[in-house]
Amino acid sequence: MSETQIASSPANLVDRHRELLDRAMQAVRERTYWSAYPEHPKAYGGEAMPSAETAFQALLGSPFELETPGATDTVGGERSPYGIELGVTYPHVTDLDTLLAAARSGMPAWRDAGPAARAAVCVEVLARINARSFELAHAVMHTTGQAFMMAFQAAGPHAQDRALEAVAYALAEMTKLPSTARWEKPQGKRDPIVLDLRYTVVPRGVAMVVGCSTFPTWNGYPGLFASLVTGNAVVVKPHPRAVLPLAISVQVAREVLAEAGFDPNLVTLAPEAPGEGLAKTLAVRPEIKIIDFTGSTAFGVWLEDTATQALVYTEKAGVNTVVIDSTDDYAGMLANLAFSLSLYSGQMCTAPQNFLLPRDGIPTDAGPKSADEVAQDLAAAVDHLLGDPARGVEITGALVSDDVRERADGAGSHGTVVREASPLAHPRFADATIRTPAIIKVDAADSEAYLTECFGPVAFMITTDSTEQSLQVLHDGVAEHGGLTASIYSTDERVLARAEEVALQIGVLLSENLTGGVYVNQTAAFSDLHGTGFNPAANSVYTDAAFVANRFRVVEFRRPA
Amino acid sequence: MSETQIASSPANLVDRHRELLDRAMQAVRERTYWSAYPEHPKAYGGEAMPSAETAFQALLGSPFELETPGATDTVGGERSPYGIELGVTYPHVTDLDTLLAAARSGMPAWRDAGPAARAAVCVEVLARINARSFELAHAVMHTTGQAFMMAFQAAGPHAQDRALEAVAYALAEMTKLPSTARWEKPQGKRDPIVLDLRYTVVPRGVAMVVGCSTFPTWNGYPGLFASLVTGNAVVVKPHPRAVLPLAISVQVAREVLAEAGFDPNLVTLAPEAPGEGLAKTLAVRPEIKIIDFTGSTAFGVWLEDTATQALVYTEKAGVNTVVIDSTDDYAGMLANLAFSLSLYSGQMCTAPQNFLLPRDGIPTDAGPKSADEVAQDLAAAVDHLLGDPARGVEITGALVSDDVRERADGAGSHGTVVREASPLAHPRFADATIRTPAIIKVDAADSEAYLTECFGPVAFMITTDSTEQSLQVLHDGVAEHGGLTASIYSTDERVLARAEEVALQIGVLLSENLTGGVYVNQTAAFSDLHGTGFNPAANSVYTDAAFVANRFRVVEFRRPA
Repeated sequence: MSETQIASSPANLVDRHRELLDRAMQAVRERTYWSAYPEHPKAYGGEAMPSAETAFQALLGSPFELETPGATDTVGGERSPYGIELGVTYPHVTDLDTLLAAARSGMPAWRDAGPAARAAVCVEVLARINARSFELAHAVMHTTGQAFMMAFQAAGPHAQDRALEAVAYALAEMTKLPSTARWEKPQGKRDPIVLDLRYTVVPRGVAMVVGCSTFPTWNGYPGLFASLVTGNAVVVKPHPRAVLPLAISVQVAREVLAEAGFDPNLVTLAPEAPGEGLAKTLAVRPEIKIIDFTGSTAFGVWLEDTATQALVYTEKAGVNTVVIDSTDDYAGMLANLAFSLSLYSGQMCTAPQNFLLPRDGIPTDAGPKSADEVAQDLAAAVDHLLGDPARGVEITGALVSDDVRERADGAGSHGTVVREASPLAHPRFADATIRTPAIIKVDAADSEAYLTECFGPVAFMITTDSTEQSLQVLHDGVAEHGGLTASIYSTDERVLARAEEVALQIGVLLSENLTGGVYVNQTAAFSDLHGTGFNPAANSVYTDAAFVANRFRVVEFRRPA
Repeated sequence: MSETQIASSPANLVDRHRELLDRAMQAVRERTYWSAYPEHPKAYGGEAMPSAETAFQALLGSPFELETPGATDTVGGERSPYGIELGVTYPHVTDLDTLLAAARSGMPAWRDAGPAARAAVCVEVLARINARSFELAHAVMHTTGQAFMMAFQAAGPHAQDRALEAVAYALAEMTKLPSTARWEKPQGKRDPIVLDLRYTVVPRGVAMVVGCSTFPTWNGYPGLFASLVTGNAVVVKPHPRAVLPLAISVQVAREVLAEAGFDPNLVTLAPEAPGEGLAKTLAVRPEIKIIDFTGSTAFGVWLEDTATQALVYTEKAGVNTVVIDSTDDYAGMLANLAFSLSLYSGQMCTAPQNFLLPRDGIPTDAGPKSADEVAQDLAAAVDHLLGDPARGVEITGALVSDDVRERADGAGSHGTVVREASPLAHPRFADATIRTPAIIKVDAADSEAYLTECFGPVAFMITTDSTEQSLQVLHDGVAEHGGLTASIYSTDERVLARAEEVALQIGVLLSENLTGGVYVNQTAAFSDLHGTGFNPAANSVYTDAAFVANRFRVVEFRRPA
């Protein structure tokens, strides 16, 4: 055994990571603020950022170093929203039988290692991914279009926190039953009947993670780690535009698995060319027993209806809604909303799209404001936020696809333009595709305009008869079209209570009167639930027991003592 | 408020049942023997049995007292396997819109009561059901055919224990998150960001429980109570042949709900005439969000594939298998297997059907036994067990349907008859339909004979080349056709280990060397898992976290502190 192997033996990893796992399990119960991986760049040392840039540059224009069973050629073609061709190629699986047989081959030993060892191996993977957070930041920036610092935080420590949360939840679920128990049933005056019971956690099979183009790690890790820690093998099928961040993650996972004495093929990468249809083919293979998907409603529903041999966890589209009734901090509200709209150009599944307010206006601490005034003031707040392009692009990032750009540029066709989506010059990347948010005013009656997800930098200011109608639109819109987030601004506790009742009925996370440094788009691991699994936007949640508890099964043996 | 209402106020019920719920939550963690409801008739007092008989007789030939929204006429027609026409009629729902609207109407108040109050109400329901256990025993005996004492235990305390287990599990899951938390994120030298978080458990909608004809309460309660305690309304759709036990249960639930100040329509009964198809119509209604089903594979798979708007928990058919390799207690093994075969004439989802043994025979403490000898000796053990008809019928009970009788009488067509299914005269019910088990010998190659569930008193002695082949048949049979139980007899630890590996691969509860007073058919609440949710026999388990955790969702509110 080499020193590396000894250092990475399951027993050593269990010792090394026990404290962190215990702390994480405490955090998910308490849900006060906690984070395992620092979001401050300084915590990573002065050398981390420059050496990560060197490492990222070395990846460009080359075949990515990864072994993949069943791969016979290569695939690639990622292009940065900032205008760079990445030129990275990846092994391309053409033989699914070989891939899936290899994925299954290591499962018995992985199962027999037990929950504690699997959790420790997963935490070691996360520790090494964490050490590559800046390299991942470059990879995420140049695939998704996120600005560098957001890419670092959201795709690095925040994604790692969500992964650890899934591992902690799953470990708690897997160890809920004892591994052995003595069953002793009294028989009156006769001797009791005594059986020895044993319970073993067994995996379901091969899991597939279908990555998305905007948050490949943040949305990919929860399913990946939840399936892996519960004993399943995982095939990661990245979005063709965002392969590199998941390729790096898979590379790390394979490295740790091998060092710890497990089969690295427990985690594999299966990238595909645009339009190839590999995800559909894989999804209905009988070996695939779990699917985690983030992306379009159309494909999510197809998976739910078609891949009935698998458990399917989906996060799809929705219409995130803000109800504006009144405020005692008008400037704070506008600044908060402007940031929520601008951050990554609204390309977040949690970004607000629909802003409902009475057409007669709202009372505020700065006096009554008409609906038009609120719309204009929000536009001005966006202008102010993004006025300096060099700083603005660090908020907006770049647009992930031509579809998003076309939606932004065409937003004016939906209603009255309050603010146009406008380009913003990037100081370093002349070819970056960047748009500031469009703000479009429509009437509540014009529901065709605003009741489909308009993914990207487009906000609808929707005028209603009253807050009561705003709440009705919130209710009906989310109940029918889904929503991951909702938000309410009101100084009236009765209105807040009515909004809460609506949120309970439609099952949506409700943020109330956010005016400071927390935004409706953001959910924190170990505290906030991401999604509810209750409305059409998602059938599952990061992270609750239901997200992890069905990924494994328990087999009991019993024998007379 | 009346005295009844005060006594049954949610607060009083929470106090009354706190200790029992705490004890139950401890039991599911420890899984040593525990039971909440005594299985000894004496524990119920000397008056309980005669007064229950009177109560049962009073139900016969009459309309059952139950209010049901949407019912416009009546339905009935249950006939006892012991030859009695029950003559009970029930409200018959013809207007599903009215039924489902009424079911939903009480859900907000039930949701707002919170997990602790809902759990206490459910335990009060169970306490009152427990008090009617002997009445339920008559109802179950004369619908399912179970012998009276089995009906008392399995449909009474054992079913109540499973229900309490589901309530305890669900309460633990619902209270896993705190109801409030203060989120305080440090901001370096600046003040921390502080948010107040609140988490509310919300129900999914209306749940449907599809009852079966053999264990209406034992198989019906887990889903009924798991859905109810998590805040959902429940429509109980009983099997046309076994309405009365669930009608009594629903009657009790409605009584307690009303006394505690909740809408009794949170639990309703929707019986149907044979062939009416109400279950299919109800199952795809958009209001129905959860379905629990026990019954045929065909309908179970139809529900899983079709009712995609709902979570579907199914228990279907399977081929329960016993592998006989060797034994050091030949007489004990035969006695144990004879009882397993005979109990309720094999009409248990957990009853063994396929007995695999090497055609060259097995070593035993009574010397080597050929396959033919084992078959003959098992037949003799059955003869011995059931030799006295008056005692025999208390083990076999009666046959639930003509289908089962026809299968028993026609079993000889599948192979060599070792023992014929024969009638047994019941000392009190001359018209009872009773059959002792048929034992049929076939070769492993003749898989058409034994690889479908032959529900009822039919056992196949299947000769194989070796125990290795027996284990292969166990593996392939259960992997493809499902199985709730498996059993192995061997004196060789290596064989037991191989059997355990097979059980892990196919996901089946494995009992080893049962020779005493525990039978492969029996699983104990709070200790044994019923099913694994892993092979085709069932997609869920009584009871694990996955069985309860997805029946509710959590909605979060967050607000600056």
